[in-house]
Amino acid sequence: MEGRPALDTEFFTRLMRHHQQGRRYPPSTWAVGFAERLLFALFPEHEGRCLDSLSELRAEFSLLHAELLRILVPLQPELPRPAAALAADFMDTLPGTFDTLMADAQALLAGDPAARSLYEVIRAYPGFYAVALYRMAHTLHRLGVPLLPRLITEHAHGKTGIDIHPGAVIGPEFCIDHGTGVVIGETARIGQRVKLYQGVTLGALSVTKDLAAVTRHPTIEDDVIIYAGATILGGDTVIGAGSIIGGNVWLTQSVPPHSRVYYHGGDEVRPPSPAR
Amino acid sequence: MEGRPALDTEFFTRLMRHHQQGRRYPPSTWAVGFAERLLFALFPEHEGRCLDSLSELRAEFSLLHAELLRILVPLQPELPRPAAALAADFMDTLPGTFDTLMADAQALLAGDPAARSLYEVIRAYPGFYAVALYRMAHTLHRLGVPLLPRLITEHAHGKTGIDIHPGAVIGPEFCIDHGTGVVIGETARIGQRVKLYQGVTLGALSVTKDLAAVTRHPTIEDDVIIYAGATILGGDTVIGAGSIIGGNVWLTQSVPPHSRVYYHGGDEVRPPSPAR
Amino acid sequence: MEGRPALDTEFFTRLMRHHQQGRRYPPSTWAVGFAERLLFALFPEHEGRCLDSLSELRAEFSLLHAELLRILVPLQPELPRPAAALAADFMDTLPGTFDTLMADAQALLAGDPAARSLYEVIRAYPGFYAVALYRMAHTLHRLGVPLLPRLITEHAHGKTGIDIHPGAVIGPEFCIDHGTGVVIGETARIGQRVKLYQGVTLGALSVTKDLAAVTRHPTIEDDVIIYAGATILGGDTVIGAGSIIGGNVWLTQSVPPHSRVYYHGGDEVRPPSPAR
Amino acid sequence: MEGRPALDTEFFTRLMRHHQQGRRYPPSTWAVGFAERLLFALFPEHEGRCLDSLSELRAEFSLLHAELLRILVPLQPELPRPAAALAADFMDTLPGTFDTLMADAQALLAGDPAARSLYEVIRAYPGFYAVALYRMAHTLHRLGVPLLPRLITEHAHGKTGIDIHPGAVIGPEFCIDHGTGVVIGETARIGQRVKLYQGVTLGALSVTKDLAAVTRHPTIEDDVIIYAGATILGGDTVIGAGSIIGGNVWLTQSVPPHSRVYYHGGDEVRPPSPAR
Amino acid sequence: MEGRPALDTEFFTRLMRHHQQGRRYPPSTWAVGFAERLLFALFPEHEGRCLDSLSELRAEFSLLHAELLRILVPLQPELPRPAAALAADFMDTLPGTFDTLMADAQALLAGDPAARSLYEVIRAYPGFYAVALYRMAHTLHRLGVPLLPRLITEHAHGKTGIDIHPGAVIGPEFCIDHGTGVVIGETARIGQRVKLYQGVTLGALSVTKDLAAVTRHPTIEDDVIIYAGATILGGDTVIGAGSIIGGNVWLTQSVPPHSRVYYHGGDEVRPPSPAR
Amino acid sequence: MEGRPALDTEFFTRLMRHHQQGRRYPPSTWAVGFAERLLFALFPEHEGRCLDSLSELRAEFSLLHAELLRILVPLQPELPRPAAALAADFMDTLPGTFDTLMADAQALLAGDPAARSLYEVIRAYPGFYAVALYRMAHTLHRLGVPLLPRLITEHAHGKTGIDIHPGAVIGPEFCIDHGTGVVIGETARIGQRVKLYQGVTLGALSVTKDLAAVTRHPTIEDDVIIYAGATILGGDTVIGAGSIIGGNVWLTQSVPPHSRVYYHGGDEVRPPSPAR
Repeated sequence: MEGRPALDTEFFTRLMRHHQQGRRYPPSTWAVGFAERLLFALFPEHEGRCLDSLSELRAEFSLLHAELLRILVPLQPELPRPAAALAADFMDTLPGTFDTLMADAQALLAGDPAARSLYEVIRAYPGFYAVALYRMAHTLHRLGVPLLPRLITEHAHGKTGIDIHPGAVIGPEFCIDHGTGVVIGETARIGQRVKLYQGVTLGALSVTKDLAAVTRHPTIEDDVIIYAGATILGGDTVIGAGSIIGGNVWLTQSVPPHSRVYYHGGDEVRPPSPAR
Repeated sequence: MEGRPALDTEFFTRLMRHHQQGRRYPPSTWAVGFAERLLFALFPEHEGRCLDSLSELRAEFSLLHAELLRILVPLQPELPRPAAALAADFMDTLPGTFDTLMADAQALLAGDPAARSLYEVIRAYPGFYAVALYRMAHTLHRLGVPLLPRLITEHAHGKTGIDIHPGAVIGPEFCIDHGTGVVIGETARIGQRVKLYQGVTLGALSVTKDLAAVTRHPTIEDDVIIYAGATILGGDTVIGAGSIIGGNVWLTQSVPPHSRVYYHGGDEVRPPSPAR
Repeated sequence: MEGRPALDTEFFTRLMRHHQQGRRYPPSTWAVGFAERLLFALFPEHEGRCLDSLSELRAEFSLLHAELLRILVPLQPELPRPAAALAADFMDTLPGTFDTLMADAQALLAGDPAARSLYEVIRAYPGFYAVALYRMAHTLHRLGVPLLPRLITEHAHGKTGIDIHPGAVIGPEFCIDHGTGVVIGETARIGQRVKLYQGVTLGALSVTKDLAAVTRHPTIEDDVIIYAGATILGGDTVIGAGSIIGGNVWLTQSVPPHSRVYYHGGDEVRPPSPAR
Repeated sequence: MEGRPALDTEFFTRLMRHHQQGRRYPPSTWAVGFAERLLFALFPEHEGRCLDSLSELRAEFSLLHAELLRILVPLQPELPRPAAALAADFMDTLPGTFDTLMADAQALLAGDPAARSLYEVIRAYPGFYAVALYRMAHTLHRLGVPLLPRLITEHAHGKTGIDIHPGAVIGPEFCIDHGTGVVIGETARIGQRVKLYQGVTLGALSVTKDLAAVTRHPTIEDDVIIYAGATILGGDTVIGAGSIIGGNVWLTQSVPPHSRVYYHGGDEVRPPSPAR
Repeated sequence: MEGRPALDTEFFTRLMRHHQQGRRYPPSTWAVGFAERLLFALFPEHEGRCLDSLSELRAEFSLLHAELLRILVPLQPELPRPAAALAADFMDTLPGTFDTLMADAQALLAGDPAARSLYEVIRAYPGFYAVALYRMAHTLHRLGVPLLPRLITEHAHGKTGIDIHPGAVIGPEFCIDHGTGVVIGETARIGQRVKLYQGVTLGALSVTKDLAAVTRHPTIEDDVIIYAGATILGGDTVIGAGSIIGGNVWLTQSVPPHSRVYYHGGDEVRPPSPAR
Repeated sequence: MEGRPALDTEFFTRLMRHHQQGRRYPPSTWAVGFAERLLFALFPEHEGRCLDSLSELRAEFSLLHAELLRILVPLQPELPRPAAALAADFMDTLPGTFDTLMADAQALLAGDPAARSLYEVIRAYPGFYAVALYRMAHTLHRLGVPLLPRLITEHAHGKTGIDIHPGAVIGPEFCIDHGTGVVIGETARIGQRVKLYQGVTLGALSVTKDLAAVTRHPTIEDDVIIYAGATILGGDTVIGAGSIIGGNVWLTQSVPPHSRVYYHGGDEVRPPSPAR
């Protein structure tokens, strides 16, 4: 087999060069495993692994702290500050993250007639899972950690179809229902008590590489509801507080607070045809 | 680490209170594992684990029966009837479920030019997998079992992007093609020989918690085809038998039988621009 | 339990007949495992498993060759040529596939302001993963291998929400961003340097089984960009080179080169309502 | 590679013939998994998986019953009675087995100065584990089940170095301490309150195939202690009740009750040598 | 099945009472996993998982420290001092343990003509593995941690057949070759540069529970070699420094320094018999 | 934690130096996985994974060939010849190895009254497993492959308690019954139709490093039976063909063909004592 013409030395030499790079980053399972273990520690509903005492909780968080440090250390050359400082800062944010996620879960429960209990929301709702992993990834992103935040949100994307860039800034009581197909871009800003349904895109109008430093994605103010399939584009687009954006709406301009934007359809209903 | 200011005793005490709840429900993997093992017993195409004799089949179903009982028993306080009665009733539905799923698979094969064989449809089509898990979950839901039905359909949602609430009622020969982004709400009613493409939403018009007991999602009568991206909303919306709903259509009102509803587009095609 | 009325001998006999078929195909994990191991060998970024020397690379590819043969041999009765010839031909395509995937990755990097490095694109972008598995599956499809190509692309579909039929023909420097909900049909033809966003469908206008041998899906010429949620249908539909298709556009007819097709919206923005 | 001279068609044809046999028996992991799950149900100390209510216990044992049936059914052609009858009979023995194993554990605790608690004995003592698996395997052996008993005892042998043939008959309060190297043959008979140390063999004097139906291994009456490394051989050898057999003793004849047999050593101690 | 006579309510009630105890101890895999991860951190030969920098090493040991704490905390009611203090003390011993294990490995290499390199000894010799896990377990035992030390040494016992009680005290440059069947009792004391072969027992003369607080096992002074199958018993038995104890020797009394004790055999060699 | 006095920079620096070595050898699981997969291909009894056709068999052996090559390549600097040549030579020996192992299994069946079928012997007898892995390891050892042979035999040692050095030379129809504690040294030579019981040592008389190149272990001629616990030592010791060595015998000198060596015991049987 080694003598095969197509897989020749030239190919392997080229591939070898490719293999000689990288290796810098820990395996994805480290980052994802950390995020999920942290989620289970904060919300034992997920796997039923309850802890029995304060001291076990403390020990679990010490362990999570040490795991995070272990993951960050090999990235030191690319980190803005010492790995130990970043890991400590991350842990400090957890009480706040816990409160925000609790508020998210309560908002999901309050807003969905099909939801039976907070327990069900935390355990079974993909919107909660995706937002929880986003909030952890966003903290790492804010601390300047490269790649890991994206590995975490892409894991959630793969499991839920909800694609939130770790750079987006999202207020509390945030709800995503169903969620498949939701895309929230890197520079999107979302206020408090916002609710999105499946297939909502908060994206860029046009995409060219030189815009990397600019706000390319819309701003959604407090108390906005955006129904399924709506597309809102552009860094100058601001959806005013309290607005309702109907399903399938296509918006590339700002709307003032308390707007209601509906899709007119323009569909044609033909008279019933005699045979199919 | 334990002396960290942010992760203080107050936080751990609050978190401990959270940990002391729940624990009631068996791990998600139990419910999902049961549903997948049942799927493999009914459709060995999935993993090639064929059984060799009638008595092995019987023994496998006895084991599945016992597994279900094992899962239901810890939920007894929340069950409407004894776990043993519910498990027995569930098993009794299986011949019917098998026939319905066979009809679903045959309809998928008949309707997709790209499908080569029933074997391929059962093994590789995400629409078949999601509908199979929905049908099992729906039976549990109908029997009054809490949470587990949702865990099963959310597992299918995660794997296929098809989100069918276990409460929906769906007739036989049901096809979902491609399927990513399909959402079927809790009170939707779907007749026989209905076919959906990816991104179809059968949803609620507006969502407030006090509507939980009301029909919030549309009714789709027999022999309807709904193309990709169509959105049909509202508990009073009825799509008459034999209708065809075009892609991207947005419908919040009923249409009579044999209607054809097309999206007009209203897109503007600009003359070719000289440079990109 | 065995005496249950519903699970009677008639049911088990019927099920037994079902069990006695099939068994022909190797488990899905074989095909998927092969595709992922091959991906890791070509792009060690994925798991950080770098190889250290040319001879290790050669040995890895010999092993992949032997694994592929092991998977194909049980399918021999359905293969158009000897399994060994097909496996050898598949391996011969790998240098070309590597170059194409490298071009795909570079195009993703060049086109996304959020992308920081080629490493990040290869490791974390679902669009790269789905296209990589499609390219391997397409080669197997072209060689006449049944089922396996579909198992591989459905695995990618499950992980990314991107559903590319292995029969589609796609040129180099192909980008899919975000990707959830993308559907590319069996007879689609896509040129070079094409870019798609999430929720784009390249589908069939109407679907009846007797069309299996006909081109049912559109042709996309070189340098086309198709924004999120656009739907392009029909085997006669050709999107001319250099065109830009806006988000949510619905197209069932050809457009000439360098067209720009925008969705007009037709949404109604109502004046702010005093209370929500 | 296929053209290699040594691995020629003749070899593969011969090997194929070998592959075409067998296949009858379920995988070893089924039998071993059943035995370990049963052990955990009876002695939750092993993995800390405690059950919370009577009805959960009942459901667990129903599940174990169904698992056993599932394992036995493919063996039906070789079973002396219907698989269902054997499975039911096995389950009926469990209260007795539980009592006997409890007595075994208590005897281990009472006899070992190093043992701190019953919990430690059940969880950590290889002697308890090996005897527990032997007792389950012995019941299956007595019921006429082929191969599975041996798979279970060989699993325990692999983990503990204690090799008890499932055919041996052993009374309650049986202790094995340390245990590595213990061998107890198929036709050995052991009374109550017997204690063995590591390396004890209860074997056959000479081994020829035509002796299969004869008692080839010794009888150990009640309250006998046999210290490390003792070898007791022969089907006519009876160790009388209450005897103590010293370490390294070699016995091929019976001894009356309350005998004490010591090894004299016959070692030579040379005067200290000036330098090593 | 639930109505079976043998598995009646009385049995399940009794079993339930048994289930309601315990639960206190973490799963065995935690303790064993910690010990093996620590072994890999100290001796990367074991799995080839080398670390690349000082800071990664530090982070790994921080993580091990946190893991140990996480394991100890649920045991707090049975610990003599706070879990955190014990974990810290354990970590403090590691440099000493590393040096001792290095000395053990070097002694194994120096003493075995079949050993090719230190690497081979560390990676492949069961004697090294068993002694390494014993040394970790002994430290935990010395700190007063219950059960965990025994779980660790029993894991090594299961893998190697070498059964060293965590209470034994063993000096550096300790070698066990082959090792199957070695038993070293709780109160044994072993000096420096001692070497044991397979099947050596350092045991108690007679075993009654009231001796728990007494030295029941022998003392082996420095530079002693004990060949295969030798048995040395009794708390008053001292093997003087520099002695050589031959294979199969049976010793229940002390011997002075530099003794050589040989087994005389007393075997009878019969003249060749004409036919077998 | 990082500031701890005992785990100081000096310790980590020393440990780092240790980590910077090695890494050369593939993980043990590669070698062991290869050996077990090869065992299953030759003897499908082990896991019931039968292959269905000659071409599947061929493909499986091609895959095994490629796996072996993949394992050997990173060891190239220490190999006496090119990895590819060694892998090919190894594969060439397999028909012979298969025949020898078949003869071993048949001899085990013929000699053990407790054995019911060849199937049972191959699947459940630790003696067969250990000898099978030894025979593969011995071939690798003979070809000059470092370390891997030892990893394979130590895996078998761990599972069975049977420790055969890969350097030993052993003829066909070799039986080990029970097996725990068997040790066969590096330079032992064993003829045809030899049978060993548990605890037999074929060892060295004295062990000093400078003897590495000398025959240190005994020679066992054809048709010898060695009963449990016998110890035979020394490179000049030859056990003549057709001899029987009794249990517990201690031999350091040669015996002529057809000798029978029995252990006399010299045990003292004291009159029954009135009370225990």
